[in-house]
Amino acid sequence: MEKTITVLPGDGIGPEVMKGALRVLKAIESRFQHRFTVTEMPIGGKAIDETGNPLPPETLEQCKKSDAVLLGAVGGPKWDGMDQRPEHGLLQIRKELNVFANLRPVKAFSPLADISPLKPELIENVDLVFVRELTGGLYFAQPKGRSGSDEAVDTLYYHRQEIERVVKKAFELAASRTGKLTSVDKANVLESSKLWREVVNEIAMSFPDVKVDHMLVDNAAMQLVRNPAQFDVIVTENMFGDILSDEASMITGSLGMLASASLSEEGAGLFEPVHGSAPDIAGTNTANPLGMVLSAAMMLRHSFHMNEEADAIEMAVQEVLNAKFRTGDIQTKKSRVSTTDEMVEQLVYR
Amino acid sequence: MEKTITVLPGDGIGPEVMKGALRVLKAIESRFQHRFTVTEMPIGGKAIDETGNPLPPETLEQCKKSDAVLLGAVGGPKWDGMDQRPEHGLLQIRKELNVFANLRPVKAFSPLADISPLKPELIENVDLVFVRELTGGLYFAQPKGRSGSDEAVDTLYYHRQEIERVVKKAFELAASRTGKLTSVDKANVLESSKLWREVVNEIAMSFPDVKVDHMLVDNAAMQLVRNPAQFDVIVTENMFGDILSDEASMITGSLGMLASASLSEEGAGLFEPVHGSAPDIAGTNTANPLGMVLSAAMMLRHSFHMNEEADAIEMAVQEVLNAKFRTGDIQTKKSRVSTTDEMVEQLVYR
Ligand SMILES: CC(C)[C@H](C(=O)O)[C@@H](O)C(=O)O
Ligand SMILES: CC(C)[C@H](C(=O)O)[C@@H](O)C(=O)O
Repeated sequence: MEKTITVLPGDGIGPEVMKGALRVLKAIESRFQHRFTVTEMPIGGKAIDETGNPLPPETLEQCKKSDAVLLGAVGGPKWDGMDQRPEHGLLQIRKELNVFANLRPVKAFSPLADISPLKPELIENVDLVFVRELTGGLYFAQPKGRSGSDEAVDTLYYHRQEIERVVKKAFELAASRTGKLTSVDKANVLESSKLWREVVNEIAMSFPDVKVDHMLVDNAAMQLVRNPAQFDVIVTENMFGDILSDEASMITGSLGMLASASLSEEGAGLFEPVHGSAPDIAGTNTANPLGMVLSAAMMLRHSFHMNEEADAIEMAVQEVLNAKFRTGDIQTKKSRVSTTDEMVEQLVYR
Repeated sequence: MEKTITVLPGDGIGPEVMKGALRVLKAIESRFQHRFTVTEMPIGGKAIDETGNPLPPETLEQCKKSDAVLLGAVGGPKWDGMDQRPEHGLLQIRKELNVFANLRPVKAFSPLADISPLKPELIENVDLVFVRELTGGLYFAQPKGRSGSDEAVDTLYYHRQEIERVVKKAFELAASRTGKLTSVDKANVLESSKLWREVVNEIAMSFPDVKVDHMLVDNAAMQLVRNPAQFDVIVTENMFGDILSDEASMITGSLGMLASASLSEEGAGLFEPVHGSAPDIAGTNTANPLGMVLSAAMMLRHSFHMNEEADAIEMAVQEVLNAKFRTGDIQTKKSRVSTTDEMVEQLVYR
């Protein structure tokens, strides 16, 4: 198959981990006889430096006309306090591509059980997916701003349709898995959560085989530590999803392991690791490339329907971990530390 | 000393744990020669049942004229879907008493290390306090409501003064402890967080001995699991504080252990356990009374300046745990399970 991919390496460790993902995709191309046409474009801080805009129109245009978008990470102290923020590029591209459903799978890798802060018996059977609403809520709604130096406001607004489409995706996903969905909200305090809960209950009627629970966000934050194996699919609004999915990354032991897929109704999906740009270790060839590589696998699966190819990558990751190759963030007592490039080499070689 | 206390047992397990706290306070009265005049008033679901209002004016009036307020918990499925919600009583009393600074200490109890989902070496040295802004933000600001059945909005608004007063309390607390303060926000996305960060940086100038860090809320959710011992005082806005403090309760192994103090500039403080009304176990004499009892200790310390008395309660709790008395939520393999009343008896006896 022929596919076009726009690649947005971004800032910090973004370019390093992206290089790794592209090497892995090259290996997939030749093993499975595909042709990926890759176009690299600037976003975030790099785009601010080059054009004064964290999401230049050319970047957006290129993304829109490609089959999928791979993104590294954006941001760094260099752009702190500037008018233009690298993060705005990320938020804008999510909004412009209308990728409202952000899938963040969290699965315990058994060879990494040692490095999780949680007790091993609690994480053994964890295999959950967050479906985070990604283009609404506190991140985007108006009014949002300052009145003078004394007042600031953000708005948590949801329209029923914004909730419906992401909740439907979550139900579909739950139906294709164990049939268990947890919807997280704060319906005892927030009006937007009451609407959220109503919509979930309505859509539930079309999915009689999915068992749906409602959980308050404070309780969810606790339950993810107390007993994460109780969850299968978790659907929640933008900000709660941001907080809970980062928290849940600790189940795998490192944020560096987590991948994400952001999907729209149609059109290009956006695939990015959950970790950030980690400016402190940028350029040192020590970043964990697995979150980025697994995001590329999600692209193959969700945008290109290349399941076998995605499986091949995920199996290679499992094997490399089994063989005790580790970047610093997932190091155990018995493992020697590999560089970013060495990890990728091990993957490609499998 | 003579002090007046308004007691709001509330719903679910509220009345049971409150009964325990009152027995402990009786013991303190006679041991230290104080006189506590206790007036019990309805709040939450109980108040809805009795008066149609989750915070009847008589309850509020009584609270305002007393030296301190002890609260159990509110809410339960019985009042779900009603126009009047028990939680509104809780939110209103916080607002009316103007208790903007909610202190939630989280300390690992060494005899409970076994029951924490976190590895023991991570929690050994945890001794942190959340200072949660309690009367502003998404919980209270207008507009908040529905437009028809399709749209809902909540508002995250902060005025500089609301931030200043709670942040000042946090700096004072940090200065009296190890001098380390972490301010949690989402300044890369929220305007209210940018204002929050500015105010923190301004107030920092008056506290040159306090080392202050800013941390994004998603990262904080992760760090609280990864390495909770890195924190001393954590200050944050209302909703983030709600989520993070429940999450952090898992360090102690059970939400049932956590106490809180909500303080105003002057006037009665409000003291309540962090746990909710746990309707599923209400009336079974199995609830953990320690969060409520420790909240009473916080009342003695913060509102009545009775440090020795508060110490006595906290030491009794430690001893009872050392002696392996446990309610179901903090049970270990080697402990037999005590009832709520038995736990309280053990406390009083010490
Ligand atoms: C960088 C930031 C704007 C972003 C977010 O909050 O969505 C990140 O934390 C994420 O989760 O992808
Ligand atoms: C019951 C609820 C309204 C309350 C809150 O969200 O503040 C509770 O979760 C708490 O943390 O005290």
